[in-house]
Amino acid sequence: MLTDPIADMLTRVRNANTAMHDEVKMPSSKQKVALAAVLQAEGYIEGFETAPSPRGVGEVLTIKMKYSEERERTISGIRRISTPGLRVYRKSNAVPRVLNGLGVAVLSTSNGLMSDREARKRKVGGEVLCYVW
Amino acid sequence: MLTDPIADMLTRVRNANTAMHDEVKMPSSKQKVALAAVLQAEGYIEGFETAPSPRGVGEVLTIKMKYSEERERTISGIRRISTPGLRVYRKSNAVPRVLNGLGVAVLSTSNGLMSDREARKRKVGGEVLCYVW
Repeated sequence: MLTDPIADMLTRVRNANTAMHDEVKMPSSKQKVALAAVLQAEGYIEGFETAPSPRGVGEVLTIKMKYSEERERTISGIRRISTPGLRVYRKSNAVPRVLNGLGVAVLSTSNGLMSDREARKRKVGGEVLCYVW
Repeated sequence: MLTDPIADMLTRVRNANTAMHDEVKMPSSKQKVALAAVLQAEGYIEGFETAPSPRGVGEVLTIKMKYSEERERTISGIRRISTPGLRVYRKSNAVPRVLNGLGVAVLSTSNGLMSDREARKRKVGGEVLCYVW
């Protein structure tokens, strides 16, 4: 078992993005699906889907990457912030901004995963999972 | 006269970086030289120099860009924050972090231009000129 499945997901997406692959597959989880949904809503990925694992255990999450018509990357960077070894939490009045609004912070809140903008609007804080820009 | 000479400088550096030019020239000023010095100290540019303008009026600032041995860019992004139309100031206890420390914010303080790390260390705030990462 991986110690940090979200870091693993972000690494796979980062690598797929560098190699400009059209999609990337990984073991699925509820939190990964929720993170993919935020990335899609924020325009960083084209979409995602889950399917039963071919090995018959668990599900596979497929993320469809997004590039411009000129084949430019939509994601320029991804950074894990909170880790199992050093959890990073922010209160609703201290939700981080990424590059002054150019990027997005994804927070795990009591109302689920959401962007920093959404968290600020809903006045909730939480664990700062990652930055994407 | 330009309304925002720092924005002009950042645009020239951004464009030179995109085109992977080895150097870029622009009209000089004390603040631009101070900004170039911070960019050099933070490792984002190779160096800089000023010379009398060939037109005989003012000085020209030449910035020597920096790339890795594999010709990868050292600068992945530059963003103007404070502008003449919307000045952005931060107190010493609220100096911004750029991508959780991956990048640098340049502040104009009463002790001169400096990085966010330096400002935090010296407990000074100021105008947030730009982010570089």
